[in-house]
Amino acid sequence: MWLLLLLGALFWAVLWFLRDRQSLPASDAFVFITGCDSGFGRLLALRLDQRGFRVLASCLTPSGAENLQQMASSRLHTTLLDITDPQSVQRVAKWVETHVREAGLFGLVNNAGVAGIIGPTPWLPWDDFHRVLNVNTLGPIGVTLALLPLLQRARGRVINITSVLGRLAANGGGYCVSKFGLEAFSDSLRRDVASFGVQVSIVEPGFFRTPVTSLENLENTLQACWARLPPATQAHYGEAFLTKCE
Amino acid sequence: MWLLLLLGALFWAVLWFLRDRQSLPASDAFVFITGCDSGFGRLLALRLDQRGFRVLASCLTPSGAENLQQMASSRLHTTLLDITDPQSVQRVAKWVETHVREAGLFGLVNNAGVAGIIGPTPWLPWDDFHRVLNVNTLGPIGVTLALLPLLQRARGRVINITSVLGRLAANGGGYCVSKFGLEAFSDSLRRDVASFGVQVSIVEPGFFRTPVTSLENLENTLQACWARLPPATQAHYGEAFLTKCE
Repeated sequence: MWLLLLLGALFWAVLWFLRDRQSLPASDAFVFITGCDSGFGRLLALRLDQRGFRVLASCLTPSGAENLQQMASSRLHTTLLDITDPQSVQRVAKWVETHVREAGLFGLVNNAGVAGIIGPTPWLPWDDFHRVLNVNTLGPIGVTLALLPLLQRARGRVINITSVLGRLAANGGGYCVSKFGLEAFSDSLRRDVASFGVQVSIVEPGFFRTPVTSLENLENTLQACWARLPPATQAHYGEAFLTKCE
Repeated sequence: MWLLLLLGALFWAVLWFLRDRQSLPASDAFVFITGCDSGFGRLLALRLDQRGFRVLASCLTPSGAENLQQMASSRLHTTLLDITDPQSVQRVAKWVETHVREAGLFGLVNNAGVAGIIGPTPWLPWDDFHRVLNVNTLGPIGVTLALLPLLQRARGRVINITSVLGRLAANGGGYCVSKFGLEAFSDSLRRDVASFGVQVSIVEPGFFRTPVTSLENLENTLQACWARLPPATQAHYGEAFLTKCE
């Protein structure tokens, strides 16, 4: 009985190891990535560019786009995109189409996201939930819907960067809410486009060192949030609480 | 071994049965419920009213509010609330405070919700996701944040009506996305307010006969969605697909 369990675990570990060693063969297919200003988006854009893919990288800021372009080959193209703005999304979808034409889009990586305020729920303004959901949930949904025809043309794939916090709501704020939502969207999308040959995957990073998990940013945001609280609420928690949070 | 398992299962079933038989003792505490025009909200408002609770019922439509008021005792008060409108939420939070005063709010039931379009993701407009998330996720979040001080005063409880579709993304559209998000909010809220004596529960209904699950509504919405699709997409799926969906 125990031997069987052990063998089963070993077999599973070997399969896992083999699966993780798989990687895409070098290719000149088109991949569109959002949020390439920094973090995972930027790293992936450069990595795929090195491997010969034709990377279409969208950035939120001109400086992010310029910096990326300087580091990359001339195959890589950048554009500005605010995924919360439907007009910006439509414009960029047309830009992608002029690049990919009949080849279609091999990959869409919905990477752009923000952390928002990570803190006790009673401290948080409604606006912040709104903003984080707009970026992290409605953003990828809008980009995906706009690019689906091009993805179907290439029988491509969608990769949504969710988070371990998309499975476990470990803290207050819009982040977990938004990533739970993106997990749901990814799962229903997966079934709805499978028959067109489009694959959908999620990546659920833990606490990697990207701007989203920058402790300095998170603490500054929380401090600003504390400073805006009514004195009665501050007294309710006490100064010591804030120190403990950090 | 099997006997132990059987006894365990029996014990669990008895505990479950006893737990489900529990019910709140009659009380004149204040309970605020959203979405009392129809469905669960209306039924709960009338039930709690009968049991002596002082029900503060919010409706989206004047006709819903009038109809409820006619069926209820004079203890029950109605107000109009659009949970997607922050000003409307602020106004109603003040209205609740003038009713509950020092007693505080014993219960908040976030019941209001919409189904949106339930259909294949590639058919859906981004707007619909936006609308459904605004009502089903950001709505309850805004109402909860606005009423938290009154809930803390009474060491009350929040009950969020999510859905079985908040655990399993069984279909396309904003509904699952929004309910996944509400589950995450409920779980982090639960931890963040526990130390103030405020409890948070979720109710995850299946396919009950309420306006949200009305097949007629869902089919009409889907038909309208189909009619708006570009002819190329319609041809891609074929008329037979729509019939099969229904």
